[in-house]
Amino acid sequence: GVLGSGDFARSLAVRLVCSGFRVVVGSRNPKRKAGLFPAAAEVTFQAEAVKKADVIFVAIFREHYSTLCDLADVLVGKILVDVSNNTEINHHKESNAEYLASLFPACTVVKAFNVVSAWTLQSGARDGNKQVLICSNNQEAKRTIAEIAQVMGFTPVDMGCMSSACEIENIPLRLLPAWKIPIFLALGLFLCFFTYNLIRQVIHPYIREQKNKLYKIPIEVVNTTLPCVSYVMLSLVYLPGVLAACSQLYYGTKYRRFPDWLDQWLQHRKQIGLLSFFCAALHAVYSLCLPMRRSHRYLLIETAVKQAVEKKMTIWVEEEVWRMEIYISVGIIALGLLSLLAITSLPSIANSLNWREFSFIQ
Amino acid sequence: GVLGSGDFARSLAVRLVCSGFRVVVGSRNPKRKAGLFPAAAEVTFQAEAVKKADVIFVAIFREHYSTLCDLADVLVGKILVDVSNNTEINHHKESNAEYLASLFPACTVVKAFNVVSAWTLQSGARDGNKQVLICSNNQEAKRTIAEIAQVMGFTPVDMGCMSSACEIENIPLRLLPAWKIPIFLALGLFLCFFTYNLIRQVIHPYIREQKNKLYKIPIEVVNTTLPCVSYVMLSLVYLPGVLAACSQLYYGTKYRRFPDWLDQWLQHRKQIGLLSFFCAALHAVYSLCLPMRRSHRYLLIETAVKQAVEKKMTIWVEEEVWRMEIYISVGIIALGLLSLLAITSLPSIANSLNWREFSFIQ
Amino acid sequence: GVLGSGDFARSLAVRLVCSGFRVVVGSRNPKRKAGLFPAAAEVTFQAEAVKKADVIFVAIFREHYSTLCDLADVLVGKILVDVSNNTEINHHKESNAEYLASLFPACTVVKAFNVVSAWTLQSGARDGNKQVLICSNNQEAKRTIAEIAQVMGFTPVDMGCMSSACEIENIPLRLLPAWKIPIFLALGLFLCFFTYNLIRQVIHPYIREQKNKLYKIPIEVVNTTLPCVSYVMLSLVYLPGVLAACSQLYYGTKYRRFPDWLDQWLQHRKQIGLLSFFCAALHAVYSLCLPMRRSHRYLLIETAVKQAVEKKMTIWVEEEVWRMEIYISVGIIALGLLSLLAITSLPSIANSLNWREFSFIQ
Repeated sequence: GVLGSGDFARSLAVRLVCSGFRVVVGSRNPKRKAGLFPAAAEVTFQAEAVKKADVIFVAIFREHYSTLCDLADVLVGKILVDVSNNTEINHHKESNAEYLASLFPACTVVKAFNVVSAWTLQSGARDGNKQVLICSNNQEAKRTIAEIAQVMGFTPVDMGCMSSACEIENIPLRLLPAWKIPIFLALGLFLCFFTYNLIRQVIHPYIREQKNKLYKIPIEVVNTTLPCVSYVMLSLVYLPGVLAACSQLYYGTKYRRFPDWLDQWLQHRKQIGLLSFFCAALHAVYSLCLPMRRSHRYLLIETAVKQAVEKKMTIWVEEEVWRMEIYISVGIIALGLLSLLAITSLPSIANSLNWREFSFIQ
Repeated sequence: GVLGSGDFARSLAVRLVCSGFRVVVGSRNPKRKAGLFPAAAEVTFQAEAVKKADVIFVAIFREHYSTLCDLADVLVGKILVDVSNNTEINHHKESNAEYLASLFPACTVVKAFNVVSAWTLQSGARDGNKQVLICSNNQEAKRTIAEIAQVMGFTPVDMGCMSSACEIENIPLRLLPAWKIPIFLALGLFLCFFTYNLIRQVIHPYIREQKNKLYKIPIEVVNTTLPCVSYVMLSLVYLPGVLAACSQLYYGTKYRRFPDWLDQWLQHRKQIGLLSFFCAALHAVYSLCLPMRRSHRYLLIETAVKQAVEKKMTIWVEEEVWRMEIYISVGIIALGLLSLLAITSLPSIANSLNWREFSFIQ
Repeated sequence: GVLGSGDFARSLAVRLVCSGFRVVVGSRNPKRKAGLFPAAAEVTFQAEAVKKADVIFVAIFREHYSTLCDLADVLVGKILVDVSNNTEINHHKESNAEYLASLFPACTVVKAFNVVSAWTLQSGARDGNKQVLICSNNQEAKRTIAEIAQVMGFTPVDMGCMSSACEIENIPLRLLPAWKIPIFLALGLFLCFFTYNLIRQVIHPYIREQKNKLYKIPIEVVNTTLPCVSYVMLSLVYLPGVLAACSQLYYGTKYRRFPDWLDQWLQHRKQIGLLSFFCAALHAVYSLCLPMRRSHRYLLIETAVKQAVEKKMTIWVEEEVWRMEIYISVGIIALGLLSLLAITSLPSIANSLNWREFSFIQ
């Protein structure tokens, strides 16, 4: 049974019919809404629909849950599936599913399908995220819903008791939470190093020697800033592991929880590492672009003309040649190794490695 | 039960035996064929085999289906699994499975396993595509086959009624269908812009000033063509979304289907975007190669020599310096952002994002 | 039931409790250990625990299996799940699971969960490798464990009879086995070509003309070595396919097994191809770095000065210009095509292609 006639209710009915279930839709105005649902689904009044079904998907907004109270008698003993989402994280004190359970204590409430979009339901889970997170206080009901999800082509994931409902409802609202701190960190470091390099390469020569080097800002200053950011970020990837090891040695046990800040830090290592790689890759591209610039060309020609006019035939400085060759060579090797690290952090590759291989590469 | 003794029949028998099923193989010449099957599978005459089994895999060509008509009596009430494929898309009017069902109306026919290769069956679905698409008009039979597929290590995907059989049979024959239009589009655009740039950079100077600039064709002309293609393709990614929104505003509803051409276009956006990124990346590599060329080196030296002979010490043009620095800088940032887009379109990364994160990045 | 109180036993108990199972833990000192387990798990003496449970996870070291012999009477008819790992590949003659089975012939032994880490058990299989490899001689017991694994959120994979236990126990110990031969091959080839290029570009000019070209070692010599390695590796990808086809033609059958060395070679093609791509990509980066070097700059200025002093205005050599333009152009196209190949070898992309598409791209 499906209660509701919005986008989600309709997509759910389509998918259930396609997966071979008998579907009955409850609506307050069945005649008007019947045209919106697939022909194989029976559309009738809410009370009728509830009587005919054992599992009822409640596809209506939390605000309208109380309108179902008239159905309390017929709902006794049924499994209610709460598929709702909120519009803000932690909008209400208790989760929608817990609120529904408090309204209908004689029903078994299961939280499920809220992480699936109406679009995925319609197109049939052939690609995209196929997980359906399920939680309930009733194991029996949870398994029933897990089986329905499996027949519909999704991968049910058991998330435990109803107290997880709040977490599950927040999932579709999160926006890359693990990336926020690393990105602000990278931006902060970039700003600091950029200011330092700007003063050193542009402002200082201007004040001391009245030389206009403003043209260096878009590329050269950015290019000396990026590797600094990359190095600091890379060291921040390996530092918390060392701190964690020290803490374990100090307390003599590995069963003590780390302090919260260290725990958070340890969990953000992957993101910090990927941003470090991103900066290193940008630095490589910027460096490779250096000889393409007009300024490079002009400086080269000016030097050549000066040498020719003064008839100085040789300009070769062995030390500078070697320094540059070794800089570039080490830089390429470092970038190659970082690329391997970045590739193994792709989910599909990380999944094909066992723990020993993963830690070997890291 | 397995009918047939080809590659697929043998691989199927191997996998079924390994998954702990009792397998009986029906052959017209059991003595000669017995050696081809694993020892644990019983090889006997077709009628014998059919009698002993409830689920029968029909691993023979469509052309030979009619030879099974002698077995019609013993087949009554059995589940027949059609595993066949065609050699051409839409070769026959009705799908193989529907043809089999019409020959044996007293049997339940299920279409399954045709998307799995004999090789995957033998090596045991540890990697590669593990989906088994199943369709049938009988829900009971479909679930039986889905369970068998699961025990064999595959992921059964319910594709609905027998009318999907035709679609399922076409799947192993498709050859990147979503890429065809975008690739021809990219090639067409490339040809147009290439011709224009060829005329502008090579033919025009030759006709007007008799200058031989043919050496520009392999790199410089291609390099000015690629970003044009990339830009037009990128705009073609975002245009259909705007048109769709306009159409929805005009008709005042989001439940009206878009016209077919717009629907097709919307579905090809990912491929068009990836080709746009591919062109942009090639453009980056071509541009980075410019200073490596002999022609670049010769032009540089010639300018220097001319300047030296004429004793002109300065050549610096502030405006040109700035233009180039900003060109390159903006180009690198654009490429960096496009790379992020391209990475999030990898299936394993797209699957780990929720809808809100995906649209934020896009 | 869980026997043991180590890391793995505790994580297993946590996951089982979270998935809604009733868990009883057997310990020799239940009072001291009770604090380590979740409150919902009952911690009691070993004999007590075994009596209460039908499925018993043996989470203790192989060395201590014999201490369970006192429990032999109460263990009769139970399912024992061996979750143990070894510290070395093929450390013991028989696998741990087979050893356990020989100690308790009246029990049904199943090998499972050893490829899952304690960490994955605790964090709940939301990402990372979710496969649980299962083997046993008893189909019934195997299915029971597969169902438990599924409820726990893992993907059970049937690996057949107990004789696979040894293979399953070796899996967490393997360290990129498929990469060993290709990497040594690449290193060997690199050394050979590096020595040749070193002699040719550095040692020979020094001996013949006393010219010090040592600065060429870090970049130029490496850069001429990498494409040689890449080419040879690429040809080694396609050669075994040709040999296999010849062997099939010679013997007139495709059912004859290839000789072992050819079989091994065929299975390493993907790794050899990826290393070939890695060398090609490094070669591209090295080449792009060439004009950034001081040595390049000095040589350019020296040539310009010499020309200016001798008042030679022209230096253009049409043939050299064309050769370089075509070299670079072909190199970029080859790298672009190799990149496509490398991208389609990512597991998540390979899984979304059918066999026909995969072989078309290859």
